[in-house]
Amino acid sequence: MPPFMGDADGCRSHMKNHCSSSDSGEPAEIFDRVTAMLRDYVASAEDRGQKVIEFKDPQEIDQIMRQCGCDLALYDGKRVGAEAIVSACAATLRLSARTGHPQFFNTLFGRSDASGLVGEMLTVACNTSAYTFEIAPVFVMVEASVIDKTVQLLGFDPATSEGLFVPGGSIANLYGLQLARFFKFPEVKRKGVQAVPGQLVSYCSAAAHYSYAKAAHLLGIGEDNMKEIPIDDRGRMKPEELERQIQVDFAAGLQPFFVGATAGTTVWGSFDELVGLRAVCDKYGLWLHVDGAWGGAALLGSPATRDRLLRGVEKVDSFCWNPHKMVGAPLQCSMVVHRKGRGLLYACNGTQAPYLFQKEKLHGEMDRGDWTIQCGRRPDAFKIWLAWKHIGDEALRHRVEWAIELSQYAAKVITQSDKSGQFSGRFELHHDPEYANVCFWYIPPSLNHLKPSSGALSPDEASMLSQVIPYCKDRMQRLGLAMITFTGEYNFFRWTFANPRSVTQDDVVDVLRNIDLVGCDFVPSLNN
Amino acid sequence: MPPFMGDADGCRSHMKNHCSSSDSGEPAEIFDRVTAMLRDYVASAEDRGQKVIEFKDPQEIDQIMRQCGCDLALYDGKRVGAEAIVSACAATLRLSARTGHPQFFNTLFGRSDASGLVGEMLTVACNTSAYTFEIAPVFVMVEASVIDKTVQLLGFDPATSEGLFVPGGSIANLYGLQLARFFKFPEVKRKGVQAVPGQLVSYCSAAAHYSYAKAAHLLGIGEDNMKEIPIDDRGRMKPEELERQIQVDFAAGLQPFFVGATAGTTVWGSFDELVGLRAVCDKYGLWLHVDGAWGGAALLGSPATRDRLLRGVEKVDSFCWNPHKMVGAPLQCSMVVHRKGRGLLYACNGTQAPYLFQKEKLHGEMDRGDWTIQCGRRPDAFKIWLAWKHIGDEALRHRVEWAIELSQYAAKVITQSDKSGQFSGRFELHHDPEYANVCFWYIPPSLNHLKPSSGALSPDEASMLSQVIPYCKDRMQRLGLAMITFTGEYNFFRWTFANPRSVTQDDVVDVLRNIDLVGCDFVPSLNN
Repeated sequence: MPPFMGDADGCRSHMKNHCSSSDSGEPAEIFDRVTAMLRDYVASAEDRGQKVIEFKDPQEIDQIMRQCGCDLALYDGKRVGAEAIVSACAATLRLSARTGHPQFFNTLFGRSDASGLVGEMLTVACNTSAYTFEIAPVFVMVEASVIDKTVQLLGFDPATSEGLFVPGGSIANLYGLQLARFFKFPEVKRKGVQAVPGQLVSYCSAAAHYSYAKAAHLLGIGEDNMKEIPIDDRGRMKPEELERQIQVDFAAGLQPFFVGATAGTTVWGSFDELVGLRAVCDKYGLWLHVDGAWGGAALLGSPATRDRLLRGVEKVDSFCWNPHKMVGAPLQCSMVVHRKGRGLLYACNGTQAPYLFQKEKLHGEMDRGDWTIQCGRRPDAFKIWLAWKHIGDEALRHRVEWAIELSQYAAKVITQSDKSGQFSGRFELHHDPEYANVCFWYIPPSLNHLKPSSGALSPDEASMLSQVIPYCKDRMQRLGLAMITFTGEYNFFRWTFANPRSVTQDDVVDVLRNIDLVGCDFVPSLNN
Repeated sequence: MPPFMGDADGCRSHMKNHCSSSDSGEPAEIFDRVTAMLRDYVASAEDRGQKVIEFKDPQEIDQIMRQCGCDLALYDGKRVGAEAIVSACAATLRLSARTGHPQFFNTLFGRSDASGLVGEMLTVACNTSAYTFEIAPVFVMVEASVIDKTVQLLGFDPATSEGLFVPGGSIANLYGLQLARFFKFPEVKRKGVQAVPGQLVSYCSAAAHYSYAKAAHLLGIGEDNMKEIPIDDRGRMKPEELERQIQVDFAAGLQPFFVGATAGTTVWGSFDELVGLRAVCDKYGLWLHVDGAWGGAALLGSPATRDRLLRGVEKVDSFCWNPHKMVGAPLQCSMVVHRKGRGLLYACNGTQAPYLFQKEKLHGEMDRGDWTIQCGRRPDAFKIWLAWKHIGDEALRHRVEWAIELSQYAAKVITQSDKSGQFSGRFELHHDPEYANVCFWYIPPSLNHLKPSSGALSPDEASMLSQVIPYCKDRMQRLGLAMITFTGEYNFFRWTFANPRSVTQDDVVDVLRNIDLVGCDFVPSLNN
């Protein structure tokens, strides 16, 4: 067994040049025991016999960790031994949601592929930063390769396009907004937005992700100036409403400059019509960014899927995509790509720090660190590169298509639920799914007279129906059954197939049956 | 061997309910072979017989990856088998800088502890996001625990303090600036900075990290309005110059609101005098943030070290610290902490997205996701929590003290280098180190008449001396010897002990000897 040196002592001051290996051997023991545990954990990801989560309340978690000999608190500053560390790791694995479980549907990410997983573990072991070629040459080149491939998928011109991996889709949208601002008002870099004559205004749809609002605040534009444009009955921004608002704002002396479209909205999974939005943006000189964090996976779908959902994407100005969603890269794996000229990211964010980006060093021209708003940056490209290499385009295409098929299958079972005889209650679909989101209500027998999908409910009815899904979710969570989030009118379930490769049609039916089982005895409380 | 299912096929569309395990077994093979490789890699981190980097040019790397059967490019979209994936991983490990090597001094981070490493690997396997309690209960509680401990170390009042783990020190400084702006001008959240009467102005020292400038641009304040205050001969912001500038700016109708101090500057390792800066900030009502990304480790040092370097830190408004620097957590591990009232982060960044932060769900009050500018967020607290538990305060204190001792020892060897007879050339110290940064020149025999530390050089002399360090660095890099970065007047080496626990005094002498060996034959070129 090779020595893992000195971890547990941490003290060289009394050793000086006597740098022998650790006396305890604990680091090696910890490494071996925890990686073996992780192997079993990953290998059992698809085991439907496991609970999706072993739910405990905070006080219970506190107590469990204490029983491991590894109290959550750090106050006393005392070290604990390998046994406690390994126990704490085991408890943490046991008590966390099993996001790779075939019935984990709570978020827009899920299980990662083994190749993505080891890619991420390798970057952890390397413990380096993607900012310079000299310390991370392969990671820097791999980042360029994944961006190049994405540029190809988008249909952007490689000669004018570039991109970066960034810590999450929200930050990718932030980059889109910042690039748009810098492109039109470069003086903002030095002088700030107060140098712009007139209030900056930007737009997204009423169904867009909250990161647009957060970015508008952060950039000093203000949430009120990230205006929400109404959506149509398929959840898409209305181009004519956008144009109307732009005209009003220009007439008021404001400075419209940015439209944040969405490819795959968080709740409905809707795709804004990029062709129509492009026409409006061209007419008024606005930057068109697309939040494709969730829907970017459609780039990998069949030509028909891509054309149906992403027509016109080759003409947008910038695009955000999270391959940790549906594609199977570990969290976080997010990128922003634009086609407005190579060098724009550097011009926008570069500060030429002489202690990091020296011109004299070997291959300093490869450094991407000064294109970013960060300094140290994890090499997030490697995991998706490795997974992509191992899986290949064709299998990824099938994965995306299967996610869409699953959502259509779920919609069918839901629509037929009142006639199928499979359920005590029934389900109602919120709208026909276009991508991999299925929004639906569960109507327990006690509320069988309610028809949420066919019109407005009275306040009392709304109050009663709104209790159903949280009730079901809580019960399912405590039982370790499927996890699905909820939102919207009267609280509907939003079911997403973000981890399609291990999900079957049987899972779909199983989930609905379990909702019915835990929810069929629901009795509404009017005062709740 | 437990089955790793379906990774390499990715296709369920023709399988429907026949969800059998993968036919290839490749995922398990990849997992086992790569984790075994990582174990060997980590176990040999301290092996001085290994090169710090096996340096290759980009074209060579391209060719090596092709020889692995795993071309860097993704264009063809074809999948490659397990053998190629494992080979590509091996090549990536081999070609990346060994940041855990005792002679890797290039950056402000280095080797992580085994406990930190497995903590990070565990979060990778869990593949979850720190935004909600329901999917990451232990990680959410652990984050609170590490923040609580940091609040204790800072001496902040726990009742009014809170904090977050964020993707890097630059983003932590960005939070500091944003919180300060929101605290004084809450209307910016909705209306933007153009709602503030008068230009926002902020300050940092001339030696501060570039992230302050980047943050000022991003926030719409502008780089010119992150004014650089002159430093004294120990690299510290001059409080009297700060006050003078604030007075000038107020008199000009501007809106000063933020001072960004630094605890441990990037190049010199200087610590701004917090007591003096606090007095100025109090007098004029400015927020005092501290970039302690690098120097925050001094919180863990002896009482004397803490008092010498961080006196008055308990009264600053916010603090950034990267435990991936010196303390041994894997990259990235960064936090921002403030003491201006619990709920401020949420008030600042919250948008109450109804699809994520539902009030009805179990323990929604534990969610920290809406305090952030991100959506998905890696659970970066876990790795430092686990490492801290395993190492304990006392060993961490010795580690920090040893880093300071090493820098003092290096300074001594450098100062005595012209008399010791150990070297052909000689070394000159830029300034006496206060923390763990040692800045020095190497003077090869051909330039023995130059005395960079004792005064200005002529342009020709400066041009000649500036070539020395890049020359040495390039040669050392190609030979796989110690990596140290350079910067500043005539290019000096900036040597940092960011990974002190495995570094010995012999390493210090060894590094200087190697610089002398590769540099002693240097002959300057006047036209270069």
